[in-house]
Amino acid sequence: MGRTAAALVIGNEILTGKVQEENVQVLARELFALGIRLLRVVVCVDDVEVIAGELAHLRQHHDLVFTSGGVGPTHDDVTIQGVARGLGRRVVRSPELASLLRAHFGESVTERHLRMADVPEGYQLVSSGSARWPAVQVDGVYVLPGLPEVFRMKMPILRESLAAQGGGFVSRAVYTLCDEAELAELLDRVVAAHPEVAIGSYPTWDDPDYRVKLTVDGADLAAVTAAVVELEAGIPAASLVRRAD
Amino acid sequence: MGRTAAALVIGNEILTGKVQEENVQVLARELFALGIRLLRVVVCVDDVEVIAGELAHLRQHHDLVFTSGGVGPTHDDVTIQGVARGLGRRVVRSPELASLLRAHFGESVTERHLRMADVPEGYQLVSSGSARWPAVQVDGVYVLPGLPEVFRMKMPILRESLAAQGGGFVSRAVYTLCDEAELAELLDRVVAAHPEVAIGSYPTWDDPDYRVKLTVDGADLAAVTAAVVELEAGIPAASLVRRAD
Repeated sequence: MGRTAAALVIGNEILTGKVQEENVQVLARELFALGIRLLRVVVCVDDVEVIAGELAHLRQHHDLVFTSGGVGPTHDDVTIQGVARGLGRRVVRSPELASLLRAHFGESVTERHLRMADVPEGYQLVSSGSARWPAVQVDGVYVLPGLPEVFRMKMPILRESLAAQGGGFVSRAVYTLCDEAELAELLDRVVAAHPEVAIGSYPTWDDPDYRVKLTVDGADLAAVTAAVVELEAGIPAASLVRRAD
Repeated sequence: MGRTAAALVIGNEILTGKVQEENVQVLARELFALGIRLLRVVVCVDDVEVIAGELAHLRQHHDLVFTSGGVGPTHDDVTIQGVARGLGRRVVRSPELASLLRAHFGESVTERHLRMADVPEGYQLVSSGSARWPAVQVDGVYVLPGLPEVFRMKMPILRESLAAQGGGFVSRAVYTLCDEAELAELLDRVVAAHPEVAIGSYPTWDDPDYRVKLTVDGADLAAVTAAVVELEAGIPAASLVRRAD
C-alpha cells in the first residue's frame, strides 16, 4: 500500500482566522507525486503539550509526519520542544545550524537567534542543491517552517529525500454536464469494479463549462485509465465535456 | 473560559492537493467574532469509520464541532453516516428536507436526490433569514457543505444560532521593523504580565513595510489595549510602523 503520511500545522493564527493556511496543499501535491498517501492533517494551538500529544499520535499511525510552523525565536515558537517531547527526545543544539546562523547574522547574532539551532536529539539535517537552508528530520518527522514562501523552498528537499520507490500517483479528471445524482449509480458501479483506484466526484457551484468533475487517482496508470474509460462510457456523449490529466 | 470548538474537514480532494481548503478561515473568523475558541482542525479521508472516530473524539473534547464536506448524493459523500455513527445515532430521513428537495428538483427528483435529506436522528434544522437552505445540527455538531460558496452562505445561520454570550473576541496588531529575535525578550515580559490575552508574533517574508507583526487577542478590549500599549512602549519609536484594529 506504500508509505503513509500526516501533517501537523501549528498555528493560533490559523485557528483565529488571521491567516489562510497555504502549506497543506503544497505538501499534499508533493506527496501525491511521490506516491505517499497523506491521510490526515491536524491544525493545533501553539502549546508544547498539545503539540507533543498530537505528534506522538500522528507518528504512531503514519510512516511520515510533516510539521508546519512554530520554528522562530519567540515565545509562540514551541514546535521543536513539542516534537522532542512527543518523540521522547531531549532538545540539543545543532553545531551545523548554529554555524549557519552565525554566518547569516554575523556579529549581531544573539542567543535568541541561536535558539533556532535547537533540535530534537537524533536529528538529521537534510538538504538539496536548490535549498539554501537544510530541513530537520528526526524519527520520520520533518520539521518545516510556517511561512509559505519558506515552506515552498523546502519541497525540493522532500523530493530528493523521499524519492518515489516505484513511482508516484497519477490523477485523471472527467468533466461532465450531468448532476451528481444522475452520476451516482454509474459511480457506484465503477467504484466497485475498480477497487485499486480512488474516485472522487466534485460538483461546481457556478462554472458555466461543467457541473461535476470526476477524478480517478491511483498508482497504476493503466488501472486509472481503465476506470476513466468506463466512466466515460457511462456518460451520455452530449454530457461529456472533456478529459484532463 | 467560554465555549470551545473544533472543525472536521472531510475531503480526499484536499489531502491529495487537488483543492485549496478555504472553509476553515471563514469558520475561524466567525467563531472568533462570536467569542468561541476554535482549538483544533482535523482533515480526514472520505471514510465512514474514519469520520465516525474523528467526530466522536472531537465532540468529546469540545463544546461544538463543525464539519465541512461530504454531503452530496455520491459514493464519496459519507459525512452523515460518519457523524451519525460517531454520535451513536441512526440515520433518518428529514421530511422537511425531503420537501425542500422535492420543491427544488420538481418532477425530476430521484431517490438519489432525496438521500440528501438523510440526517442523524435527533437533528435540528437551523436557519436564518438570509440563508435559503437550513443547516443540520445534532448534539452540538453542525454539518456544513464543502463547496466554499455554499459554506459561506451558512455563516449567517451560525451567527444567529450561536450569538455571542457576553461578546466576541477582539484583536489588535502592531507592525514593527524589529526582527523577531530583538522582540523576543519584550514578548516574554508582556506575555507573562498579561495572561488574559493571547499574543502572537509573525514575521513577514519580503514585505517592504514591516518585518514582524505582533497580534494581541482577547475577550476584554481594555486588557488587549493594555498589552498593546506595553508592547509599543518596549519598541524603539523608529521601529514602530503602525497599530491596526
